[in-house]
Amino acid sequence: MADLVHIDDPADPRLVDYRDLRDVQLRKSLEVENGLFLAEGEKVVRRAVAAGFTPRSFLMAPRWVESLGDVLSTSDAPCFVLEEKLAEEVTGFHVHRGALASLERLPLPGVDEVLQGARSILVVEDLVDHTNVGAIFRSGAALGFDAVLLSPRCADPLYRRAIKVGMGAVFSTPWTRLPDWHDALPMLSERGFTTIALTLADDAMVIEDAVAGQEKVALVLGSEGHGLSERWERSADRRAIIPMREGIDSLNVAAATAVACYITARR
Amino acid sequence: MADLVHIDDPADPRLVDYRDLRDVQLRKSLEVENGLFLAEGEKVVRRAVAAGFTPRSFLMAPRWVESLGDVLSTSDAPCFVLEEKLAEEVTGFHVHRGALASLERLPLPGVDEVLQGARSILVVEDLVDHTNVGAIFRSGAALGFDAVLLSPRCADPLYRRAIKVGMGAVFSTPWTRLPDWHDALPMLSERGFTTIALTLADDAMVIEDAVAGQEKVALVLGSEGHGLSERWERSADRRAIIPMREGIDSLNVAAATAVACYITARR
Repeated sequence: MADLVHIDDPADPRLVDYRDLRDVQLRKSLEVENGLFLAEGEKVVRRAVAAGFTPRSFLMAPRWVESLGDVLSTSDAPCFVLEEKLAEEVTGFHVHRGALASLERLPLPGVDEVLQGARSILVVEDLVDHTNVGAIFRSGAALGFDAVLLSPRCADPLYRRAIKVGMGAVFSTPWTRLPDWHDALPMLSERGFTTIALTLADDAMVIEDAVAGQEKVALVLGSEGHGLSERWERSADRRAIIPMREGIDSLNVAAATAVACYITARR
Repeated sequence: MADLVHIDDPADPRLVDYRDLRDVQLRKSLEVENGLFLAEGEKVVRRAVAAGFTPRSFLMAPRWVESLGDVLSTSDAPCFVLEEKLAEEVTGFHVHRGALASLERLPLPGVDEVLQGARSILVVEDLVDHTNVGAIFRSGAALGFDAVLLSPRCADPLYRRAIKVGMGAVFSTPWTRLPDWHDALPMLSERGFTTIALTLADDAMVIEDAVAGQEKVALVLGSEGHGLSERWERSADRRAIIPMREGIDSLNVAAATAVACYITARR
């Protein structure tokens, strides 16, 4: 059972994992250097622990201790209990749904381990927005994708906001970072995947045609601003487009991913 | 040509339209009471003016005056020019892409005007998140939907963040608010639409089957938390579901809308 540690002083040094959660730059270095990530909200905390991540500590308002009692009973980590106002002073914002946990990151698996048995995968290049990363994990999981590969510069899917938007799909989806950006797509082609880049390029096929009859598909998604790099666009086996009404900006990347996943899953 | 008014004092009362843009409650009452809305970013400002909305004023850093010169030349409204740091003091955040405009709202059209000639429409109940409202307008526009109807309590699509996420799709899409929540869906059925509620209900049909062969379709979407009200779920002609992998939380409303629009548009 987790030790309940009542906290009166928001400057208590034991709360270091939970400081200034809105400061993205600070959090990035703090979390990576210390090998931790944060789960926010009862449901997400529960899923992180159920998925086998080891808690370093919990932080919650008194009224959440009981409803998370079953989770706390499985851990030896301290549970810091403090009033919501004090919690807000520590984290810098109002914590919705009351509970936070700091958990140990696990070493990322190798690409071949992630690809084992996978038939449909997402390959994501340089997304910068954590909300989009989380939404893509959630859509992929809901629509039957088996794994996610991220380019070296893609935003962290274990960042608090990405996890929350994805409702913890990152815990149940096999994923890793691609060690080599330049030859990532040829590497997947060698492993039997048809790599299909979602793009607005002139030589793009309609996506239904691009996925039809393909056994193993890697759907390749570019970043929010300028889309895919030329290298990835050109090194993919196929370029595909979602048919859209003329004169309209393309779908945003999260919406396009949902549509493309749906079509690919039903090939 | 808009008058360029150089501002040195962030407390200048002429900047009232631009105060505290992060304070959602304050902005809601200020914007509705004064019949205004804010456009943010060069592209969105440009589209708002092109769509025929009358500017009350513009606010931008000096370096944006030239690139928006063609827009400013079409308006008699003042253009407040101030350094980015001062602008941040007024608005409460760093203004991306430099430019803001305050514009007059237009009276909302009647439902029948919005429905004229429409074959595929979105009907949205009580969404609270402005990001989702904007994303839904954008997906609808890109995937060939003709109009959007909002329940009386749905979040404002002319709220700055909704416009921005939607890339101004709200300017080019006919939309209005439903005056009557209770009988909104029967009213649409009377007008020849098959109302199809997106739901996880037990008696839901697969969405492809629900839309197949239907000439006029109204796709009905519920709020983020609990989905559709029972009244709307039960007063729709059909209930439909997007097939998903078992054990996964449903898609978020923006992703589900994109998929459902795509399927409906290709019926």
